[in-house]
Amino acid sequence: MSHHTTGKSLFLGSFIHSKSLDELEYLHNSAVCVDGNGVIVAIEKDYDLKKAEETLFPKLGWSVGDVTVKTTKSGQFFFPGFIDTHIHASQYPNAGIFGKTTLLDWLNTYTFPMESSLSDASKAKKVYTRCIQRTLSNGTTTASYYATISVPSTNLLADLCFEYGQRAFIGRCCMDTLSPDFYRDETPATALADTRATISHIAKIDPSHSLITPIITPRFAPSCTSELMHGLGALQKETDLPVQTHIAENPKEVALVKELFPKHESYTHVYDNHGLLGPKTILAHAVHLSEAEVDLIKEREGKISHCPASNSAITSGTAKVRWLLNKGVEVGLGTDMSGGYSPSILEAVRQASLVSRHVAMGGEEEAKLSIEEVLYLGTKGGAKVVGLGDKIGSFGVGMEWDTQLIGLGSVDGDMGFGDEGPVDIFGWETWEERIAKWVYNGDDRNTLAVWVKGRLVHERKG
Amino acid sequence: MSHHTTGKSLFLGSFIHSKSLDELEYLHNSAVCVDGNGVIVAIEKDYDLKKAEETLFPKLGWSVGDVTVKTTKSGQFFFPGFIDTHIHASQYPNAGIFGKTTLLDWLNTYTFPMESSLSDASKAKKVYTRCIQRTLSNGTTTASYYATISVPSTNLLADLCFEYGQRAFIGRCCMDTLSPDFYRDETPATALADTRATISHIAKIDPSHSLITPIITPRFAPSCTSELMHGLGALQKETDLPVQTHIAENPKEVALVKELFPKHESYTHVYDNHGLLGPKTILAHAVHLSEAEVDLIKEREGKISHCPASNSAITSGTAKVRWLLNKGVEVGLGTDMSGGYSPSILEAVRQASLVSRHVAMGGEEEAKLSIEEVLYLGTKGGAKVVGLGDKIGSFGVGMEWDTQLIGLGSVDGDMGFGDEGPVDIFGWETWEERIAKWVYNGDDRNTLAVWVKGRLVHERKG
Repeated sequence: MSHHTTGKSLFLGSFIHSKSLDELEYLHNSAVCVDGNGVIVAIEKDYDLKKAEETLFPKLGWSVGDVTVKTTKSGQFFFPGFIDTHIHASQYPNAGIFGKTTLLDWLNTYTFPMESSLSDASKAKKVYTRCIQRTLSNGTTTASYYATISVPSTNLLADLCFEYGQRAFIGRCCMDTLSPDFYRDETPATALADTRATISHIAKIDPSHSLITPIITPRFAPSCTSELMHGLGALQKETDLPVQTHIAENPKEVALVKELFPKHESYTHVYDNHGLLGPKTILAHAVHLSEAEVDLIKEREGKISHCPASNSAITSGTAKVRWLLNKGVEVGLGTDMSGGYSPSILEAVRQASLVSRHVAMGGEEEAKLSIEEVLYLGTKGGAKVVGLGDKIGSFGVGMEWDTQLIGLGSVDGDMGFGDEGPVDIFGWETWEERIAKWVYNGDDRNTLAVWVKGRLVHERKG
Repeated sequence: MSHHTTGKSLFLGSFIHSKSLDELEYLHNSAVCVDGNGVIVAIEKDYDLKKAEETLFPKLGWSVGDVTVKTTKSGQFFFPGFIDTHIHASQYPNAGIFGKTTLLDWLNTYTFPMESSLSDASKAKKVYTRCIQRTLSNGTTTASYYATISVPSTNLLADLCFEYGQRAFIGRCCMDTLSPDFYRDETPATALADTRATISHIAKIDPSHSLITPIITPRFAPSCTSELMHGLGALQKETDLPVQTHIAENPKEVALVKELFPKHESYTHVYDNHGLLGPKTILAHAVHLSEAEVDLIKEREGKISHCPASNSAITSGTAKVRWLLNKGVEVGLGTDMSGGYSPSILEAVRQASLVSRHVAMGGEEEAKLSIEEVLYLGTKGGAKVVGLGDKIGSFGVGMEWDTQLIGLGSVDGDMGFGDEGPVDIFGWETWEERIAKWVYNGDDRNTLAVWVKGRLVHERKG
């Protein structure tokens, strides 16, 4: 069996996923068949092992001896892997370290020195390895990563994601102005050449982008010259690759962009006018957008990564997610580690719920997001944001098996206190209540196993 | 050795605690001696085992063979136990379950049915046991508990805290009006008699209140008649016991109090006019207080329990902690489980930081609380709120050893990935940065051991 193929698998038991923004579907006593390419080839309700072997396998042309079977124990369930639509792998060592800073001084104090230091390959390897292990163990099956400006270090992140089996978008950071001397692209031309170098590297390790995709990454407008952004826009047109950047995170940043790009109607227009706003563009934060900007994003089919933990931690503001959703824009969740303190999308799910309540307390009562809605943002919504809505984020025939197995602790269980993680199930809870308990108190201890494209990429010990 | 005495102990290594609101003291290579009553009898800097045995023990009249020694490993540190100034033990099974409710419908939908059901002794035992295990394992050495209206069930909570060794204030809930028929004190007289019954029970198990103290607990003004509150005020005067209740959590509750008590100047005056506001009163929430009310609380030396996770979760509002502190009122932290979703004060510490940032984003930039400040609230501040500022909450000669041993994970460590908990230390972090990482990503896995009054009450396996 080669590195990235798996055998045939049958998964049995409970499957829970987003049917729509405000509805979770609960499939119990069900069967899901996944072929050797990690693709779901059957989903059937009211199935057990015997029935699957007798009726499903023959239909699929499978023989019993060739199939690995995994059945949920009582209370466990399969859930789509989380999708982190915005994360800086290179900032992992700073998770939790931000003091009282806000965006612009945070970049200079903590972020640029750390990113710059990862030109040291051994340090980069240690940091990226741990970041991938952590995010996988927290159920992140797909991550849209920012690396650093260094090509070897960025390529290493691609290699490591491929090796560990995490689906990833890999962005070499482009930044040729207003950045410190020790950490800046020399010219627009070198920035473009370096971006192409990472694209070429990924084409070698994963030519079909089955797992790893390069993503064009102008850091954000203030750190890019117009020439560089025009070049990156042209590169996008040439390659049809996705784009990621930051937008309207912080009021001072918004003011700075206005000052730096006085001829452009808005921050959003800066990207649009450089060919960087399209259906494959992921805009992180989107906290301080005007209605006209959201309309333009919707028109271009641009996507938004909501980063609630980050926005609260470094005091950026409260994104109006309900408003964005009502406007018809696709929204996913990002940890934005280390502006966000946590590598966990479950924490982002929780924070999205809490931040929506802060928006509600500001007077917009309908802003409150439900458990169903925040889980949608972390899975199916995120899949659409990274352009993989037809492949991952929920369960369906023809989709790929990017999944986590969730187990919650039982007060009456036979494991000792604490061994089953932070969630205590007493036994009388409904399934909806179990999900709420998981969302609010769960952590990586509840993510018992993780698969990407059918391959088991993480399993909890014990 | 009897149940609640311990041997002599020497603790060696790193000790970190709040010196003041905005300063943590870092004591490295230090020694702390704790006598058989759990009282700290010596704290010395620049000490190792040899020096302690040679110079400290003789001074204390201790012999080497009688002393248990515990030394921090590299990177570990002793930290004061957390103090939860507001927690409903009886709501533990509902942690994380609150939907989109706000205070008043949350009470009727989730809370009263659960609390009422704990009149079943076996259910109460299961719930309270798990609550105590959870909070201890999260480093909560002292908790100010609300139980239910049931005397046997409330007394059971006292028994269990005593047995597990958690320092606790135990409140039987008083509520004789505006509560459901199935869950209400019959008359003011029965409510007072039942309150006395719990006071008598605790006098039997812990006459000196060395660990367990009864606390007079009018649930909140809307669920208490004036007659009951007058009775409880008189009982406080008679017994000098502490009082806990809720105040100004939610705008609708504030309006309701205004309607129910039209002759009183404010919500705060309702308690004050019934003899329930004094230096031993813990007021939970205090989100929607007027300046005059805060002035009155300050004048009476009343204390405030800030419950940030709860206030965000059930959309109560954002308490202005900086303002309360500037006014000179003592503030501690409460989980307010299950209005708050988490039994962990570390989570409350984190949420206090985040909520203060939401207040700052509302325009009061100075509202932002530092790491040092939120840790103060969870320890030394909380100790003052529960009236034990001279006994617990920080390290000092004559104070009691209520302590947690904290360990953070090392990326280079010899344990496997994930076994050391959620915090990754790369090795180059300063102590201040380690503390920040713990505050933002730590959990019960980092609380390796917990002592109350010198007794080891929790130790992590593995």
